[in-house]
Amino acid sequence: MSSETAQPHPKSRGAARRAMRRGPTIDDVAEVAGVSRGTVSRVLNGARYVSPAALKAVERAVRTTGYTVNQSARSLVTKQSNAVAFVLSEPQERLFEDPNFSVLLRCCTQALAEHDISLILMLESSDAERDRVLRYVRGGHVDGVLLISAHSGDPLIADLASGVVPAVACGKPGGPEATIPYVAAEDTEGARQMTRHLVAQGRKRIGMIACPQVVGGPERLQGYRDVLGRRATKRLVVHTSDYSFAAGAAAMRELLSESPDIDAVFAASDLLAAGALAELRRAGRRVPDDVAVGGFDDSRIARETDPPLTTIRQPLERVAADMVDVLLRLIRREPASSRLLPTELVLRESA
Amino acid sequence: MSSETAQPHPKSRGAARRAMRRGPTIDDVAEVAGVSRGTVSRVLNGARYVSPAALKAVERAVRTTGYTVNQSARSLVTKQSNAVAFVLSEPQERLFEDPNFSVLLRCCTQALAEHDISLILMLESSDAERDRVLRYVRGGHVDGVLLISAHSGDPLIADLASGVVPAVACGKPGGPEATIPYVAAEDTEGARQMTRHLVAQGRKRIGMIACPQVVGGPERLQGYRDVLGRRATKRLVVHTSDYSFAAGAAAMRELLSESPDIDAVFAASDLLAAGALAELRRAGRRVPDDVAVGGFDDSRIARETDPPLTTIRQPLERVAADMVDVLLRLIRREPASSRLLPTELVLRESA
Repeated sequence: MSSETAQPHPKSRGAARRAMRRGPTIDDVAEVAGVSRGTVSRVLNGARYVSPAALKAVERAVRTTGYTVNQSARSLVTKQSNAVAFVLSEPQERLFEDPNFSVLLRCCTQALAEHDISLILMLESSDAERDRVLRYVRGGHVDGVLLISAHSGDPLIADLASGVVPAVACGKPGGPEATIPYVAAEDTEGARQMTRHLVAQGRKRIGMIACPQVVGGPERLQGYRDVLGRRATKRLVVHTSDYSFAAGAAAMRELLSESPDIDAVFAASDLLAAGALAELRRAGRRVPDDVAVGGFDDSRIARETDPPLTTIRQPLERVAADMVDVLLRLIRREPASSRLLPTELVLRESA
Repeated sequence: MSSETAQPHPKSRGAARRAMRRGPTIDDVAEVAGVSRGTVSRVLNGARYVSPAALKAVERAVRTTGYTVNQSARSLVTKQSNAVAFVLSEPQERLFEDPNFSVLLRCCTQALAEHDISLILMLESSDAERDRVLRYVRGGHVDGVLLISAHSGDPLIADLASGVVPAVACGKPGGPEATIPYVAAEDTEGARQMTRHLVAQGRKRIGMIACPQVVGGPERLQGYRDVLGRRATKRLVVHTSDYSFAAGAAAMRELLSESPDIDAVFAASDLLAAGALAELRRAGRRVPDDVAVGGFDDSRIARETDPPLTTIRQPLERVAADMVDVLLRLIRREPASSRLLPTELVLRESA
């Protein structure tokens, strides 16, 4: 961090580093003032909308602790934007259809707010939009990128990996260029949990609605195959191109036609499972009596379907918090590696 | 515009201005190349993701037309960010609840893409977020602001009005600081259309679910009062604080308790109307037989309610396109004024 302040010699740099380590931090000021770290940062950045009481408390705490303005002025020195881009590589309608995105957006916004950092949302679903995102990021307008739902081989991943700006992906990016750190659920193990559950229920013909082109998809398919081995025949697995409701309904239609004796299906997302439920109802199959249905996500949708979905819970709040944590470490030039978070089987009524 | 290029004397400036007026424009290049204006701009800005065919066509058209690179380099000279902030002054859940926002977001994104300009979304629902938006905007990271759904007296309006950066509001901002240009539907006239329709249906006790603190709200209440005059008694009007489903249900409950003989209600948004419909069903009142319900927006929701909503259509696609047009004029330092767009009564089954 001391490399971000102007220091003439390596020796005095080391001294400054030690001094900063000894000196009061913004957290000390927040604690003494009895306000959040974000409020302290806002006061130090000359914020407009701070209550007079909070302003006074922070000013007093700055004096008490001896916190120096130099430290807070660091962002000016290094020309940081104090903003992070939340780049969603999906068409806009997916932002509104899939509740996972709104959870990630809310949790990332909150985690960044703790550090007084803005979240700006950019959509990237065409070559032109990708160009514009890259141009904006290269222009120094953001300090880092949270890359959400990148499809395998998204060229933006390679560009970000080349070091334009610190970046973290949500889920393990596919493709050979997958060289940026990521935060993901343990997708493979989660898929094994669900498949084992369906087997334990006595299901014999267990199908899968897989989505191997989208982040998390290959791992979920692998987990299903790990448990079923040769019982995972070609006719029992349908590949879709996204995690949408429509894709789930179409895939279920195909499964029913290819394997009419199917008695369970594991869908790689809750939205896919919701589409499968609608198609099963249309075909007159009872859930779970005739066909058990398992989802993946434990999003809001899992509680709203009829019957409610048995699913695998992804800890999205933690995924968001960890993505922000990894990104802030990278921005501070501290070491940070990819993280995998455990999943959990959530039993409801569909399986 | 010539002031944006480096010219030594006022005289040669005028000459340059005339030359530029005569010279080929980016639209000429696009026409000759048979591609969009956005594609030309992307090629000139060194875009990565352009098809080889488009690249070749643009390069050929630049030679054919004699278009000079100086013009295209203007954004570098003036340090423009080529991005515009879409600032939503609502809590995040409202972005996902109210379909009007997604329509505005999509249409503004498309209109800006025509000019190869990025849209970045920022949410502003707390003092801290407002501080961060203002800091980011002041930092020169965007060329302009599209301000969506500002509540009356939102301090951000005053700050934007002071000339930090060009800005346009969606709907007429309330409060004394309302000095930035806006694009709005003719809310007052729209409300008159709906109220006249309810009167023409023979309704005698016409209530209103109003939302005077939110943009568009005062005008819609005024239109209702213009038609009903003294028949718009205090007991027939309930004020809510936002355009949400929950607020509509609560307001309808209050209206039924205050005026049990109510036979029609005009809700100031489709979401408010949907909430009112749910509450009327709960109370055992038939729609439209016992109580007619009219909405405002003609959003997706109006087609999804049971019965489908009779409502007032706001031309949101045009609102978005006009907001972008006004903002681009302001960014180019051309004159631009507020615009009012006509509404339309859409008859369905609820009234």
